[in-house]
Amino acid sequence: MAVGQSSLPTLEPVAGVRLGSTAAGVRKPDELDLVIIELAAQSQVAAVFTCNQFRAAPVKLAQSHCREADPRYLLINTGNANAGTGAAGDRAAWQNCQALATLTGCQANQVLPYSTGVIGERLPAERIDQALPAALANLNATGWAQAADAIRTTDTRAKGRSQTLALSTGSVTLTGIAKGSGMIRPNMATMLAFVATDALIEPGLLRRWLREAVAKTFNRITVDGDTSTNDACTLVATGHSGVALDTDTKDGQAFLSALTSLCGELAREIVADGEGATRQLAVSVCAARSEAEAERVGFCVAESPLVKTALFAGDPNWGRILAAVGRAGVEDLALEAVSITLGDQVIAEDGGVSPHYDEAKAAAYMAGTHIDCHIDLGRGKAEATIWGCDLSYDYVRINAEYRS
Amino acid sequence: MAVGQSSLPTLEPVAGVRLGSTAAGVRKPDELDLVIIELAAQSQVAAVFTCNQFRAAPVKLAQSHCREADPRYLLINTGNANAGTGAAGDRAAWQNCQALATLTGCQANQVLPYSTGVIGERLPAERIDQALPAALANLNATGWAQAADAIRTTDTRAKGRSQTLALSTGSVTLTGIAKGSGMIRPNMATMLAFVATDALIEPGLLRRWLREAVAKTFNRITVDGDTSTNDACTLVATGHSGVALDTDTKDGQAFLSALTSLCGELAREIVADGEGATRQLAVSVCAARSEAEAERVGFCVAESPLVKTALFAGDPNWGRILAAVGRAGVEDLALEAVSITLGDQVIAEDGGVSPHYDEAKAAAYMAGTHIDCHIDLGRGKAEATIWGCDLSYDYVRINAEYRS
Repeated sequence: MAVGQSSLPTLEPVAGVRLGSTAAGVRKPDELDLVIIELAAQSQVAAVFTCNQFRAAPVKLAQSHCREADPRYLLINTGNANAGTGAAGDRAAWQNCQALATLTGCQANQVLPYSTGVIGERLPAERIDQALPAALANLNATGWAQAADAIRTTDTRAKGRSQTLALSTGSVTLTGIAKGSGMIRPNMATMLAFVATDALIEPGLLRRWLREAVAKTFNRITVDGDTSTNDACTLVATGHSGVALDTDTKDGQAFLSALTSLCGELAREIVADGEGATRQLAVSVCAARSEAEAERVGFCVAESPLVKTALFAGDPNWGRILAAVGRAGVEDLALEAVSITLGDQVIAEDGGVSPHYDEAKAAAYMAGTHIDCHIDLGRGKAEATIWGCDLSYDYVRINAEYRS
Repeated sequence: MAVGQSSLPTLEPVAGVRLGSTAAGVRKPDELDLVIIELAAQSQVAAVFTCNQFRAAPVKLAQSHCREADPRYLLINTGNANAGTGAAGDRAAWQNCQALATLTGCQANQVLPYSTGVIGERLPAERIDQALPAALANLNATGWAQAADAIRTTDTRAKGRSQTLALSTGSVTLTGIAKGSGMIRPNMATMLAFVATDALIEPGLLRRWLREAVAKTFNRITVDGDTSTNDACTLVATGHSGVALDTDTKDGQAFLSALTSLCGELAREIVADGEGATRQLAVSVCAARSEAEAERVGFCVAESPLVKTALFAGDPNWGRILAAVGRAGVEDLALEAVSITLGDQVIAEDGGVSPHYDEAKAAAYMAGTHIDCHIDLGRGKAEATIWGCDLSYDYVRINAEYRS
């Protein structure tokens, strides 16, 4: 299941980036499961990785390589997460980097590895090595759509977005692809995103902008709160447009805004394709004392199994939302100051149900597929929006059946 | 659904305590839904209540009354939680206390009110007032089993335990009843427990012992982590046995141990009757740096939707357990030092699957109804056990259908 219809839009090439996909037979034969992304020399790369302490072998290796050298290749496989595989998993990830380095004449630590799929099984590194020449032969600036398809695991659809920005000193392009079904994937080899631009951005600023964009987008989605061992989001700036960006300029701010917008669209695509999802939920929390407080309340509501099952039932069950707000750990929360809105209908205020609450109207709103819940905490100026989805029979089916 | 079979054991009378149940028609006609527990004069009462900031009207009132006066009556209704009902809800709770006080000749603040059931609907306080004489007429020292039945909402079975302790200076009896399906109940009017003893215990010590027992029992169960607006656990000591207990004596420690054991059995009864539960899970975490750390890891595993759906499927999916441990926020966790055992089989160690892991043996163990998962963090001496249950189709059905 997935919420609504969605087809992949046209993904614009980014000068300095080529992509090649192929079928390496990692888990199943004849399915695209291997992607190489080639970055032009002098490209800058920023990346954020999972906070799970049990990071998969490729995550640990990619983090080291980012520190050691300038990346020239991203190497992505699906079908196997290479997580929970001990020292043998570390060696397998390194072997693939070394093989690609030998074929392309770069150093092994200029390859960043990414894996997604089943956890705890040995990575078939030899099959990946053998498929590298075919992926290299396919390298093409127009390979984005095929790569978006190839990095899927149980995603029901490919996810990508593109945007071209006309700035004062020229045009820059932003293109990104992602895979995942929320923070959670069967066996937790979850979310990957790769975004590239031809803008020229110095490394420190690139890292800062990526962190800022991710904080408000990928880090604000949840299917059920399980953080993966393999999550990663990577941002590449090739500089090939010749348009240099700096932080305090209008162009710089326009770029950051476009980057955040593109990451947000990819993040919402992931939630809409959440496991078993039939409805999408946006919880926007305002008038909080801090952004962290607003996030905490938003997550508490969006992750509550009671809210999620009510969402599945199309039931405007405001009591469950109220109780989730109440257990979010907000100190000295004044019940009377809190109001909750579904769509444009105030459902709770003054510590109880609103006198204007109309069950039939609220139920009609909840019959839709995109539900907006707005929570006003009445105690500050900070805000945050969290995106989630419902908890359906299909969620249980998918996760109870995945391994067998 | 519920895990296994369970019939209510004999519940021994506690000298100084009488219970009366009746049908007040709070939500449905002709079902037991009102209980009065009468406490002898000079009884000491300790109580702990929900940490949810949106406490229901009866919770707020019971907390005030506990501070103001010596309680003589506990007044419990099911069918309506009187939560999210604003100022009118506060007045309704007080009205019932006043009515019972008038009938019995005590003060209104000597009555502690408890409500459980649907949230956000007006409490039919008049119907409760009218039923009070019938409940009073039923007061009886042997009324425990009927009361255990009357306080149920969607619990599939009544829950109670009794124990008589032979101490050095005489015998004391402990009897307790509980209702609930975990920390969560449809619409969050969840868990209630009432425990009484005829031991003589001074108020400060009674409060301390209740807190200690609850911390290791009711506060260590989870169905899905949703904390209710109405949770409460109340401990009464009538002193009618004449056996006085103090903290540093052998008798005192024996009593605390028996109290903790009884609360633990009631708590595990709640989890076994968890919504849609087909399997029960005990996650014992050892070698943690602190008890709080052990609890956090245990809850993270027991509440993980991925672990819970694997439990439902009977799938020994150690990768999901590992990933849940990894996201529990334990700083500087050494992956290599962690080991995970299911029953008596080591499944994960040294950062990956154990070389002794036998999928068939592990699957055979997971086919049972009571699963023990032991996690050794390899970094300290503290430990804690958390009890949970699986996430099944029936959980979704119950919570998607409850209101309609």
